[in-house]
Amino acid sequence: MSPLLLKQLWHTPLANASDQEIVYRDQLRLSYRQVYARISQFGAALAASGFRRGEVIAVMDHDSHRYLECYFAIPMYGAVMMTVNTKLTPAQIAYTLNHSGASMVLLHADFIPVIENIRTELSNIQKFIVMADGAPLPSTSLQFADEYESWLADRIDNDFGFADFDENTRATVFYTTGTTGAPKGVYYTHRQLMLHTLAAGMALTAPAARQRFHCEDVYMPLTPMFHVHAWGIPYIATLLGVKQVYPGRYAPDMLLKLIRDEHVTFSHGVPTLLRMILTAAQSSSVDLRGWKVVVGGSALPQALAKQALEMGVDCFSGYGLSETAPILTLAQLNECSSAQDQLADDALATLCCAGRAIPLVDLRIVDDTMRPQLHDGHSSGEIVVRAPWLTQGYLDHAEASAALWQGGYLHTQDIGAIDRNGYLRITDRLKDVIKVAGEWVSSLELENALTLVTGIKEVAVIGVPDKRWGERPLALLVVDKALFSESAAHDQMRSSIECGSISKHALLTQFKQVDTIAKTSVGKIDKKALRAEHAATP
Amino acid sequence: MSPLLLKQLWHTPLANASDQEIVYRDQLRLSYRQVYARISQFGAALAASGFRRGEVIAVMDHDSHRYLECYFAIPMYGAVMMTVNTKLTPAQIAYTLNHSGASMVLLHADFIPVIENIRTELSNIQKFIVMADGAPLPSTSLQFADEYESWLADRIDNDFGFADFDENTRATVFYTTGTTGAPKGVYYTHRQLMLHTLAAGMALTAPAARQRFHCEDVYMPLTPMFHVHAWGIPYIATLLGVKQVYPGRYAPDMLLKLIRDEHVTFSHGVPTLLRMILTAAQSSSVDLRGWKVVVGGSALPQALAKQALEMGVDCFSGYGLSETAPILTLAQLNECSSAQDQLADDALATLCCAGRAIPLVDLRIVDDTMRPQLHDGHSSGEIVVRAPWLTQGYLDHAEASAALWQGGYLHTQDIGAIDRNGYLRITDRLKDVIKVAGEWVSSLELENALTLVTGIKEVAVIGVPDKRWGERPLALLVVDKALFSESAAHDQMRSSIECGSISKHALLTQFKQVDTIAKTSVGKIDKKALRAEHAATP
Repeated sequence: MSPLLLKQLWHTPLANASDQEIVYRDQLRLSYRQVYARISQFGAALAASGFRRGEVIAVMDHDSHRYLECYFAIPMYGAVMMTVNTKLTPAQIAYTLNHSGASMVLLHADFIPVIENIRTELSNIQKFIVMADGAPLPSTSLQFADEYESWLADRIDNDFGFADFDENTRATVFYTTGTTGAPKGVYYTHRQLMLHTLAAGMALTAPAARQRFHCEDVYMPLTPMFHVHAWGIPYIATLLGVKQVYPGRYAPDMLLKLIRDEHVTFSHGVPTLLRMILTAAQSSSVDLRGWKVVVGGSALPQALAKQALEMGVDCFSGYGLSETAPILTLAQLNECSSAQDQLADDALATLCCAGRAIPLVDLRIVDDTMRPQLHDGHSSGEIVVRAPWLTQGYLDHAEASAALWQGGYLHTQDIGAIDRNGYLRITDRLKDVIKVAGEWVSSLELENALTLVTGIKEVAVIGVPDKRWGERPLALLVVDKALFSESAAHDQMRSSIECGSISKHALLTQFKQVDTIAKTSVGKIDKKALRAEHAATP
Repeated sequence: MSPLLLKQLWHTPLANASDQEIVYRDQLRLSYRQVYARISQFGAALAASGFRRGEVIAVMDHDSHRYLECYFAIPMYGAVMMTVNTKLTPAQIAYTLNHSGASMVLLHADFIPVIENIRTELSNIQKFIVMADGAPLPSTSLQFADEYESWLADRIDNDFGFADFDENTRATVFYTTGTTGAPKGVYYTHRQLMLHTLAAGMALTAPAARQRFHCEDVYMPLTPMFHVHAWGIPYIATLLGVKQVYPGRYAPDMLLKLIRDEHVTFSHGVPTLLRMILTAAQSSSVDLRGWKVVVGGSALPQALAKQALEMGVDCFSGYGLSETAPILTLAQLNECSSAQDQLADDALATLCCAGRAIPLVDLRIVDDTMRPQLHDGHSSGEIVVRAPWLTQGYLDHAEASAALWQGGYLHTQDIGAIDRNGYLRITDRLKDVIKVAGEWVSSLELENALTLVTGIKEVAVIGVPDKRWGERPLALLVVDKALFSESAAHDQMRSSIECGSISKHALLTQFKQVDTIAKTSVGKIDKKALRAEHAATP
């Protein structure tokens, strides 16, 4: 049996598009042939350094051609690429490096200070290779085994001859942080990454005209490459043999310059980055028409999508988790629509929902006995999935792994509804949903309804225990007392119930005026804190 | 580990496109939901009949929704679908049915006479299920266990719940006939068919604008469904959730009517069928603009491609073998070209060559020591391949299987050249190539050059033993003696050598005038017979 291995992604681009470019900022242009030669040198360098199959090698870099080389060379050698989340605290970085068992770190000079501070805590790291971008290194107490370019240049092997091995060999590991507990390691095998590449690749290429990625696009990620393999898209882009542009450290001017000068047509990122680029483009009069962006990480606001579409940007939403490789769904429209049609309310809502399952994904919404709910657009349940590329569990964490896969499906802990055309709308997080008389009531949808009420400045809805109903909603309100009336709030609830946007159980909502609503460090409503404070006082 | 199984192809079409249509001739329209329900009933019927996993079930039908149901239901049950080549002789059909071990045949009424004649020779068949298309059955001595529709209708199970099993379970088997020996059984597992579906699917969907298949196409095969799973495209079409049209027994009027009335936009077939439809369309003034056709099975003549393009048909070539699932390459152009550009000689030549390797295919041209040859458009060698879906060998034929995989690559026995953009041009069959001083000289290219010489009515070139050169070319010519001169033939050779279209070893060609050139039963030049007759007399 012929194993599925990441090296196979190179067969066709090397044969069919070997002169195609891979660009790093405004600094460097390499051909696919050259990048593959560097990957070969990387393999030879690992062999020369005595690395064994299964060893873990960590990477800390901005989005670069070097990171792309790591995406391939480390797993193709049979080692495991650990992508370090450089946004974590130094203590978390130390924890994840130690927990992964990484023995080497490939380190961009920008991250020297972070590592210097935690050097003594790193129990297993034997070697650091520094990546310098041509600039002189800062003075540091760290000892470097080599500098990346000279480490590669010492090898003249342009075709290292990466061996075949079992497709279930681990290829990557990275850490995901929940609201509680230590970061958890998520890992993927060659087989899983290959199947995600093919299925997500087919989903992205298949539409007739819009919301798609194709062979003549120019690709630039706007997602950090440490974040779930930049959604797996660098693997797809390489397989398609398209021109790739890596922007290094994100700076609006550089991103805009690259989009304009390199004719970037396909990207993906969080809503914040899209907003930043739209704003920068407007103030510097850069034409973004023809640029396509998949938005994920958090919900794509309709106002932002509308602004993007009006500027000629073909934006659409996607959904997935660190544990799902990550792509599960994409919000592609059914029919070739003109830009005008896409600004219609229903099309806009569709482009901003989570989207439809991609090939091979068995996506269900289930109640707490795992019974599937109707795909009627209203019935909601926890989103659970099966697909041949989902992570098998968390690294050295049997309990969390078992919970993840309870009942044979991976539990997303998101609540959603699916319509008859397969479009998934996320309505809440499982932990924030309110269970009234056995039915799941979305706290987010109640909040959305209440923000429409005059005089309500801020609102958070949580579930509180109730003898009769199990739970009932409690709305915490920051109000302008001169304008707010509770009866207006009740009126709004009733009209939202009538139009079907919220459950009739919303009528059980109690109101409580508060001075402030607790937030997390990133500015989200801290429902855990709110429940602790208010759940006992209905 | 989550196995790759054909049933997974249904997850997304059922969730996202359950109302989409599957049409049979002008007789029947079913939704995807209904077809899946029928597949479930099929599974329940197999279970009720006591079928076991691994049993072989043969199918003899025209291209139909029923055949599509067999493509899924039989392998999803864990049984093996044998697709009977109804174009074989009755003796060969008996041989293949017996060799496969099939225990049941699903039989269209049109094939009753064939089976009736060989019934006594069929050693293992327990049951026949007849498929009747609504017409009354002919009187026959065959005993039918049931009629297909009533066999399904006895089951009310709309979700049979096909079980998971090992992805390396055999899914299909069919027989390929070479020029010598008995037909050989080629078989595929669920894993192999799934990987072929994803890789070929991505290759077909990925181009920017032309030479592609997409979500809004309407699909109709023009390849018999017994022929290598109709190139695997019904599996891709189902995964994409497109409208599918099955034309039954091929009749030009019906095909044209379906293309027109059902708005068919994507098909695949042999050159003969394309020519037939173009001619029928011209004589009945049917507009074929917007129709896309992949042409395979034999080389796409440039004149035919030109005619198709001029009629607005987006046609392009593909290449593969029964043993390769089958798609290995597709002749898609690099850039979005206008219809006009595609009529340029070089674009036309590209559309008619074998094309470029599809994702994950490691395609090489090698000499007889397996050394890879340059991709310079001229150097030629035997085409050998690796990909994760190639057949592992022939059914119960260890010797032929070992020969197929000699040196770890699958040997196509075709000779080709690859250019620097990856386009493969087939130049000859391995057994017909002439080895002059260790270099491979294409007999086909010499023949093409000689057909340009005035007075040559027919030509066949074979290799004959030569003490000095190993082999040298012998051109057998049927000439018009009044017009032909050998010196004109030599002049043509020299000018073809100068422009690089044939090897300089062509100068060693000897000429021999003959009255006729031996042909095979299907009208091809019979080089084996010619070698037997002429190889000893240089």
